[in-house]
Amino acid sequence: MPTIPELAGLDVVDDPDVLASLSHDDAEWAPFGKALAAVRPRTTAEVQRVVGACAANRIPIIARGAGTGLSGGANAVDGAMIVDLSKMTRIVEIDAENLTATVQPGVVNDDLKRAVAEHGLWYPPDPASAPWSTIGGNVATNAGGLCCLKYGVTRDYVLGLEAVVGGPAGEYGTAVRLGRRTTKGVSGYDLAGLFTGSEGTFGIITEITLRLRPARTEAPKTVVGAFGSVVAAGEAVAAITRAGLVPAALELLDRTCLRAVEEWKHLGIEADAAALLLAQSDTPGDDEASAIAGVFRAAGALWAEQSTDASEAEALFAARRLAYPALERLGPVLTEDICVPRSHVPRMLSLIEEIAARHGATIATIAHAGDGNLHPLILAPVGDDQARRAAQAAFEDMLTAAIGMGGTVTGEHGVGLLKRAGMRQELSPGVLAMQVAIKQTLDPLDLFNPGKVIG
Amino acid sequence: MPTIPELAGLDVVDDPDVLASLSHDDAEWAPFGKALAAVRPRTTAEVQRVVGACAANRIPIIARGAGTGLSGGANAVDGAMIVDLSKMTRIVEIDAENLTATVQPGVVNDDLKRAVAEHGLWYPPDPASAPWSTIGGNVATNAGGLCCLKYGVTRDYVLGLEAVVGGPAGEYGTAVRLGRRTTKGVSGYDLAGLFTGSEGTFGIITEITLRLRPARTEAPKTVVGAFGSVVAAGEAVAAITRAGLVPAALELLDRTCLRAVEEWKHLGIEADAAALLLAQSDTPGDDEASAIAGVFRAAGALWAEQSTDASEAEALFAARRLAYPALERLGPVLTEDICVPRSHVPRMLSLIEEIAARHGATIATIAHAGDGNLHPLILAPVGDDQARRAAQAAFEDMLTAAIGMGGTVTGEHGVGLLKRAGMRQELSPGVLAMQVAIKQTLDPLDLFNPGKVIG
Repeated sequence: MPTIPELAGLDVVDDPDVLASLSHDDAEWAPFGKALAAVRPRTTAEVQRVVGACAANRIPIIARGAGTGLSGGANAVDGAMIVDLSKMTRIVEIDAENLTATVQPGVVNDDLKRAVAEHGLWYPPDPASAPWSTIGGNVATNAGGLCCLKYGVTRDYVLGLEAVVGGPAGEYGTAVRLGRRTTKGVSGYDLAGLFTGSEGTFGIITEITLRLRPARTEAPKTVVGAFGSVVAAGEAVAAITRAGLVPAALELLDRTCLRAVEEWKHLGIEADAAALLLAQSDTPGDDEASAIAGVFRAAGALWAEQSTDASEAEALFAARRLAYPALERLGPVLTEDICVPRSHVPRMLSLIEEIAARHGATIATIAHAGDGNLHPLILAPVGDDQARRAAQAAFEDMLTAAIGMGGTVTGEHGVGLLKRAGMRQELSPGVLAMQVAIKQTLDPLDLFNPGKVIG
Repeated sequence: MPTIPELAGLDVVDDPDVLASLSHDDAEWAPFGKALAAVRPRTTAEVQRVVGACAANRIPIIARGAGTGLSGGANAVDGAMIVDLSKMTRIVEIDAENLTATVQPGVVNDDLKRAVAEHGLWYPPDPASAPWSTIGGNVATNAGGLCCLKYGVTRDYVLGLEAVVGGPAGEYGTAVRLGRRTTKGVSGYDLAGLFTGSEGTFGIITEITLRLRPARTEAPKTVVGAFGSVVAAGEAVAAITRAGLVPAALELLDRTCLRAVEEWKHLGIEADAAALLLAQSDTPGDDEASAIAGVFRAAGALWAEQSTDASEAEALFAARRLAYPALERLGPVLTEDICVPRSHVPRMLSLIEEIAARHGATIATIAHAGDGNLHPLILAPVGDDQARRAAQAAFEDMLTAAIGMGGTVTGEHGVGLLKRAGMRQELSPGVLAMQVAIKQTLDPLDLFNPGKVIG
């Protein structure tokens, strides 16, 4: 690695194996280049030094957290500096009086949850990666999760940010504070919101102030419904929305996913139905849970009941969270992240089956079904080129189908590399031009995560 | 008015009196210029024609709805074209299956609420101006209201927008669709969020797709607490947050406000306490309402009780909504909109009293107290120059005090003209430069509401 004198004294990684492992996220088949080096800053000041040094040497800068992304958003380009933020793990403040927490970007989602729980508080966003993924990564991708249905996505919890930027704010390496600490505020354009979900293309987020909620007083109740087909489960999802019910979560798992988890973890789940719906209710009393079970039955469930066994309920939600890694064990998994209007969930699930059949692709489906956010997982054994071509064709067809019914190509994983073509299909040329113009304005040297999102 | 041939056939207003009334909003002492004309489009295509024609003639374009704004955000500059969107009142679609509504910008907030209620749905954002203000104006200012505390502000309900823009997207007059129809989505930068609260400085919003909620099944319960001082009421507000309670609304009214409403409307409210807190609870059962009353009492309320008389509860909330117009009847009112961290509400209320005493200003206070969003209303009789100078000095001092405790100069009214200096005090030069750069990028000719927000 060429010496960059400005980085002297920083925690620089140039071991080729470690560097390679830091040069991509968890997205299958997303290309990545050969990074120059990685650096592990611990403070905002160190990030400022890194950004300033990279700008002086015109080195592209790629921020990353735990690397659990599924779109290639943290993948290296040749000659890039990887800024690994996983050592910035300080919880700066938990302000119980104002229901906020301020954290460095490397704090792991579940660690934050545990820390605020000690103050009787709750940070809701819960991507399935919560045990590993970092708040910085969650903010960069505007991560969703299971409880978005009732409690919203990461953006709904970001009040303010500190970011190291370049361009209009000053020289590359300037730190700015965007947003606010108050519950409300309209002082200028919503730059904190704009940075949320921008995948590191505007700068490096070095501190985040998050809104919290009081801890839930009610232990969530789980309702399980078993269905004879994935599409029938989808019909029940649409019926839940129509009935005016807003569960805390409403997840779908098909048989392939359940079996893969069971074979790996032996949670004791019998995967006899074609699909399960898992709903969580956290309103006081049993009315909502009963209503959900009633809708499942009316929509044709094989059976539906409120789980009375807490460990069984926990096992089912654990299965949901483990579905992706369980399938990944079996071979490369190409992950879709389409989101469609909820009334179209059954039609989209039916189209997924058609697309799988047409291309001879193996597709397992998990879904944040209540949000219309579906994750068909396309499996393709290593070395099977035909399966890989089928997978990619199916991937494109699903994006087109989702756009065709008023949906989006990415509900929560971000554009990264894998959804760039899909995004160009979804958005009009005028809107794409606006996106490009904002990127050029905020990062005139195109140093922050070049080629991602609008690349 | 000089003839603009491109506007032939449109509903153009050039009557001087009507034009003057359309040339400003409801903000006291905000300057406004002499507009060239106003036009009242009914369709997106007509807005496109207007914007194209104005751009060809380099005429500034100022969008307005009902003109209930309190920051001068819709005030004319000399030679401007006022685009009065109050005739674009079509509710394009209510999609009960997907909990969305799509509307033109001139739809009045309460009209939308009534229309969706017929489908068992609810549009929560409820600025006090809801009987008159339009959804377009609400989106342009990211309006708040009473139930933000639990249900969020306008931005939390904006899924997608159609806007007529110029610049990167194409010639001035190009219509683009930003955002989405789905509950979640991260396909590109969040331009719909960026436009929300941008006060018409990026383009003209011509259609809005809003997220709805199922109608509340529980009739809200009102808890009233009377306090011996405004500061004591503020202490109770901080205690509510500390207790982990999140009422649907938590409003403060001081005696001056209550008396002004009573003298005008004769609702039968006895304004004997120095301040009232009005809380609304909409969780099932009475536990939350009892807990709120208990916190009020423990915090030193003169009395606190759940209102058992629905018409009394309604009168109290009506008084809250009418406080601003009731005080306006008495003379010019300069409206603050500071928002502070909730734990600082008592200190800020105490500082407001100090500031009023120091300047000899008369200040009445209403507040979305649970959000920390305070509206001290500074009264200054017409023609009393000394009172006006005192009012303006007090106004500036309150902004400084709010910023000093980590607050913002505007919680929900927007920057417009009146908060521009305050915003420059609140945000760093780097952040201001980013704001200016984005405005220049999206509106390179500076035609959309020039001089507002970052002007």
